[in-house]
Amino acid sequence: MSGCTFCRIVAGDAPATKIFEDDHLVAFLDIRPITRGHTLVIPKRHATDLDELDPETGARLFGFGHRLAKSMRRAGLTADGANLLINDGKAAFQTVHHVHLHVIPRHHGDTLRFAKGFVLRRPHDTERTAAALRAGLDRLADEERETTA
Amino acid sequence: MSGCTFCRIVAGDAPATKIFEDDHLVAFLDIRPITRGHTLVIPKRHATDLDELDPETGARLFGFGHRLAKSMRRAGLTADGANLLINDGKAAFQTVHHVHLHVIPRHHGDTLRFAKGFVLRRPHDTERTAAALRAGLDRLADEERETTA
Ligand SMILES: [Zn+2]
Ligand SMILES: [Zn+2]
Repeated sequence: MSGCTFCRIVAGDAPATKIFEDDHLVAFLDIRPITRGHTLVIPKRHATDLDELDPETGARLFGFGHRLAKSMRRAGLTADGANLLINDGKAAFQTVHHVHLHVIPRHHGDTLRFAKGFVLRRPHDTERTAAALRAGLDRLADEERETTA
Repeated sequence: MSGCTFCRIVAGDAPATKIFEDDHLVAFLDIRPITRGHTLVIPKRHATDLDELDPETGARLFGFGHRLAKSMRRAGLTADGANLLINDGKAAFQTVHHVHLHVIPRHHGDTLRFAKGFVLRRPHDTERTAAALRAGLDRLADEERETTA
């Protein structure tokens, strides 16, 4: 699968600004973001589409997407919401054929900026954006510890 | 929560063409579908957004969305792919404030039909569409039984 860009990111053979990684998943900034903080979450093991993705890995993928959407409302990004999107299959506009979940932070009144971002898809201040996303994940983990303590 | 349209569908107090229901979830046809078979999956217990949705119910919601996307490639709908989408928060174009996952079947070369459907959002042959979706879910369950047998 060395021809797969996302497998190369998993292997560390292609550059990416990672914001999260565990044994099963990697999350990194989309290099053509629609909004600042637009992140892709992928399984480490190659799966072309949802038909090839096992349910356990799917649960991990979506579970982290849920956490990431929540964390975007926290700390640095202070988003007001998010779009979570999987384009499954070429017919559904999937362009990289390794399953990926888009998590796109949104702000009140950003519709015009969103439309512009959809056309331009240019990166914004990559390192600060990644730091804000990581801070949001940390904040969410802190809140969860407080709730269970 | 009687003011919530989706809670009323869960309670059976508002009409909907359901294609799946269990103790935790309901899936029904979008009354303004972008494509034929466009389905919404919702938790039975009201949660306004992903911030309010507990992780277990989130896992069930996404898990069923994964199954539904796979099943759309099977039996009656013979889709080639699907878009899975959550608009989380008013800022992200969420219009009904009860968490819902869109699962939108796609076919090769349907980009123009998709764009038209996005504007028109008119229902197509509701009962036959629901029957095709249920048949796809049955087919997927059969395949899974064969694999584990
Ligand atoms: Zn790959
Ligand atoms: Zn509700």
